[in-house]
Amino acid sequence: MAIHQQVLNLVEVCVRKGIREAVISPGSRSAPITLALARHPGLTTRVVADERSAGFIAMGLAQQIGQPVIVVCTSGSAVYNLAPAVAEAYFQEIPLLILTADRPKDWTHQQDGQTIYQTEIFGKHVKRSFEFPADVVHPDARWFADRVANEAVELTRAEPCGPVHINLPLREPLYPTADETFQYGPVKLIEPLKPVLGLSAETWHRLQEEWDSAERKLIAVGQGPHDPALLAILKKLSEEWHIPIVGDVIANIGRNDEFISRQDVFLQTPDTEFKNRLRPDLLITCGQSFLSKPFKLFLRSNPPARHWQIQPHDRLADPFQSLTRLIPYEPAAFFEKLFSDIDYQRFVSNDEDDEADDQFQATWQTVDRKAARMVNQFLKDEAVFHEWAVVQRVLEALPVDSQLHVANSMPVRYVNLCGLDEKQQVAVFANRGTSGIDGCLSTAVGAALTTPKTVTALIGDVAFFYDRNALWNNLVPPNLRIIVLNNHGGNIFRIIDGPAKQPELEPYFETSQPLTAANTARDAGLQYTQVSSYAALKTALADFFAPGDGGKLLEIETSRPTNADQFQRYRQLVQETFGGR
Amino acid sequence: MAIHQQVLNLVEVCVRKGIREAVISPGSRSAPITLALARHPGLTTRVVADERSAGFIAMGLAQQIGQPVIVVCTSGSAVYNLAPAVAEAYFQEIPLLILTADRPKDWTHQQDGQTIYQTEIFGKHVKRSFEFPADVVHPDARWFADRVANEAVELTRAEPCGPVHINLPLREPLYPTADETFQYGPVKLIEPLKPVLGLSAETWHRLQEEWDSAERKLIAVGQGPHDPALLAILKKLSEEWHIPIVGDVIANIGRNDEFISRQDVFLQTPDTEFKNRLRPDLLITCGQSFLSKPFKLFLRSNPPARHWQIQPHDRLADPFQSLTRLIPYEPAAFFEKLFSDIDYQRFVSNDEDDEADDQFQATWQTVDRKAARMVNQFLKDEAVFHEWAVVQRVLEALPVDSQLHVANSMPVRYVNLCGLDEKQQVAVFANRGTSGIDGCLSTAVGAALTTPKTVTALIGDVAFFYDRNALWNNLVPPNLRIIVLNNHGGNIFRIIDGPAKQPELEPYFETSQPLTAANTARDAGLQYTQVSSYAALKTALADFFAPGDGGKLLEIETSRPTNADQFQRYRQLVQETFGGR
Repeated sequence: MAIHQQVLNLVEVCVRKGIREAVISPGSRSAPITLALARHPGLTTRVVADERSAGFIAMGLAQQIGQPVIVVCTSGSAVYNLAPAVAEAYFQEIPLLILTADRPKDWTHQQDGQTIYQTEIFGKHVKRSFEFPADVVHPDARWFADRVANEAVELTRAEPCGPVHINLPLREPLYPTADETFQYGPVKLIEPLKPVLGLSAETWHRLQEEWDSAERKLIAVGQGPHDPALLAILKKLSEEWHIPIVGDVIANIGRNDEFISRQDVFLQTPDTEFKNRLRPDLLITCGQSFLSKPFKLFLRSNPPARHWQIQPHDRLADPFQSLTRLIPYEPAAFFEKLFSDIDYQRFVSNDEDDEADDQFQATWQTVDRKAARMVNQFLKDEAVFHEWAVVQRVLEALPVDSQLHVANSMPVRYVNLCGLDEKQQVAVFANRGTSGIDGCLSTAVGAALTTPKTVTALIGDVAFFYDRNALWNNLVPPNLRIIVLNNHGGNIFRIIDGPAKQPELEPYFETSQPLTAANTARDAGLQYTQVSSYAALKTALADFFAPGDGGKLLEIETSRPTNADQFQRYRQLVQETFGGR
Repeated sequence: MAIHQQVLNLVEVCVRKGIREAVISPGSRSAPITLALARHPGLTTRVVADERSAGFIAMGLAQQIGQPVIVVCTSGSAVYNLAPAVAEAYFQEIPLLILTADRPKDWTHQQDGQTIYQTEIFGKHVKRSFEFPADVVHPDARWFADRVANEAVELTRAEPCGPVHINLPLREPLYPTADETFQYGPVKLIEPLKPVLGLSAETWHRLQEEWDSAERKLIAVGQGPHDPALLAILKKLSEEWHIPIVGDVIANIGRNDEFISRQDVFLQTPDTEFKNRLRPDLLITCGQSFLSKPFKLFLRSNPPARHWQIQPHDRLADPFQSLTRLIPYEPAAFFEKLFSDIDYQRFVSNDEDDEADDQFQATWQTVDRKAARMVNQFLKDEAVFHEWAVVQRVLEALPVDSQLHVANSMPVRYVNLCGLDEKQQVAVFANRGTSGIDGCLSTAVGAALTTPKTVTALIGDVAFFYDRNALWNNLVPPNLRIIVLNNHGGNIFRIIDGPAKQPELEPYFETSQPLTAANTARDAGLQYTQVSSYAALKTALADFFAPGDGGKLLEIETSRPTNADQFQRYRQLVQETFGGR
């Protein structure tokens, strides 16, 4: 048996349960874990020095493959550098298995290097935190370690998915002898079966009654991956039952003639009467967070009488302050059953679809189209070079069937305001779990490592430089395209109302920074282009998405005051179009 | 009263209690804190976008001024990016007041942006964590907030100093109206008086008995700032009572003819008999952590019968596994009283200093001098260009009365092996609280901001790039000198035994990285020079420390295998000189 046999067995359990990827940050205390992963034939391992970036790269990988990814770091403050990614993964519900090496507890706070309090260090931001004993010698301790390995892996992918932490206090010697060969296992495998979620006939009946009693129904989809089954049934509900379906760009339901996607535009109007006409009686939601603040505020001040959230777990979030039911169901399956049940009922009772619903959808669709015309008109104007118009042109140029990773905070708002046509088949990702700027680029790098598709990261200068260590490793893949919207500061603070009016705006909020991405691109071996006009942008985009030997970075320079002015002009247009104060 | 009057009052309490510095990361939820700090005439504020770097910059400031520094960040994962610096400050015992903006608890985990579980988020790595109520309306809530402000500030600088956290849930509106003027206070000030630490006559008597009963006494000083009073009494103890005084370079007691400073060299020998001759009966320590692993291992396997740690607080750390007494006293005052009491006693009883002590000091001093000759000889050789020899030449060139910030992990070891002559008056700093590489450069930047002295950061390439955002702000001062020891990877893993023998050494441990610091220096506006020979180094150093308009960066390229070979050669020399296996 190896000195750290419990680590070999942990890795074996992971692989037997389907884990295929590990991201490792170098360290000595973590050597037993690193070696166990590196030598296991069933795993792909990737090494990233900066743990903050490593955590987000792992998250980007896990997001793509839909399976937990292992993240390894050494003891000490290294662990805390993983924390931002752990929090994002927790709230974005992405499965990660965090393995942190630790010194045995005997040595905590004894002035020895790289020793901090690692037990349960991620607090409420992991689904659960386990800890191996330092000495796995008693048979019970071995049973405990194997059992924990099983439970930890399964927990990462039980709904809602998320990060799980195992802290591993390890004694010296940390390295095997030269002649030692690793024997993985034998291990004990425990397989929890997954339940099919259902509701009793009586409960369905009650839901149908609520459904029938509501005249104005609205379905709103939160953040989530592209889901063809969900999309199909939502289209049917929109086309056949005339229910308005609303989704932000991060909902990945695509923009088409049926769905509502410009809510961020038209709900920005202060006209309360206008918004009252759009208020639903029954709101049905699924998915994770919503991006559009106007949409959230609209529902909070025009609350539906009933709000159902369809989700396969019982974690309660009430972002519109109107939730009345949590329905434990897979969303697509729920809508399919609802449709077929009610369709059958109507067929039996010879009911026609009531007209109120039609009118309600028409109201939403009419304002949505009006918003589309307004925004298109606004963005077509090339008199002024500004960021939002730039984003529109970038989106139009995205390759079909590619990925877009949008950074916080302005880029994701711009992209939502622009929208993406479903024909483009672009999957949109954004770190909206905590909405931080700290790992947006790393997440895109992680995604690009595992998909053959083109992965475009659209990112502002502050988020780009904050997370530039995403590019400091030997991993940056050739399918990565980075577009830096450089306005040399945090432009959002000039665009939102509060800080724009303070004398402290520039030094304390925008915090102007002089860098361009040229040197960072050079260091990362990325092909670099910089533009600052529509003409140059058009030329650059024509070549940018073509395949290349390495990744590419396109930097687009705009002016913060101009961007803010244009956003102000847009706000006036909204008031002129949809009613002002 | 302002909407966020409790924040204004908190800032007023801080200033009234002597806080003068705040480091702010931009954000919107934190705007009430930012504005309260920016508008207070009693404070200097500095803005740093990357919270990870901001935390360490604040720590570097606090380290210099000996007063707590305020650190502010917005809600969400921003808070977690402060955590590495918080942990380092906790274990290095540096006073920081961490003010984190939060959303009101009502909104935690409700899919709203930048909202995580911030209550007590730093776990055991702050001395205490407080939280303001979201609604400070009831008189008791106001009393609570004022009281917490008082307690938090005082706690940061009560021994042992450290970080204290106040989480501030803040409701909208976050920004004042244009015509609003801030009125700070009135505030309630509570002043805890500081006790003078003393011991009863009876306790002194017992200590004197233990002192007298020990033949071989050794005083070892852990990490700490330069302390003239401590130094004076230690010199007296060495000269008049012939007690060997041992200190690593981070103890800041300086290298001179009296003190022992090459313990890291001669205790590396495997010769157990040799080490047994150096074993003390009574070990007296003060200060924080010890750097030299051979010294720690020597004491653990040759434990003194008694070990006193002198410190003005009761936190128990036993790094040599031999602790018998924690003595609550200021170290300098303790040694002075001990000296005068025992001196008086000897005078009364007409005792002479016993000879055993003399011999013991002579043994230590002899091997120390032998080690010095050996190392000097080794480093003088210019046949091969290697890192340790480079460090020696850099140290010799340091300006008198300047500061040296040494990064983990190899640079601090090299510097300790070289030592610094007390005549150079160089104050040495290193993040040995958690011994991470994550904030070494930022800490040096923080220090350079507040001292007029030259601040030299000596750092390896991995730590440099990891923390390069230290240079991404508008703060980099002209007295900063950065020396990057670039061997394109984590050289330590080739130098320590375990990983060097694994086939995974290069990809998984050293993790070679191709960058030079040229582009980073350019981006930061630093004058840049690169050398890779002794001749070029000599020329570069002649100019490097001269004053300039801006900071400077000197990059020294060496080869990992050569550095490891030379270290191996040094180890053989140790065995040849001090006995082998």
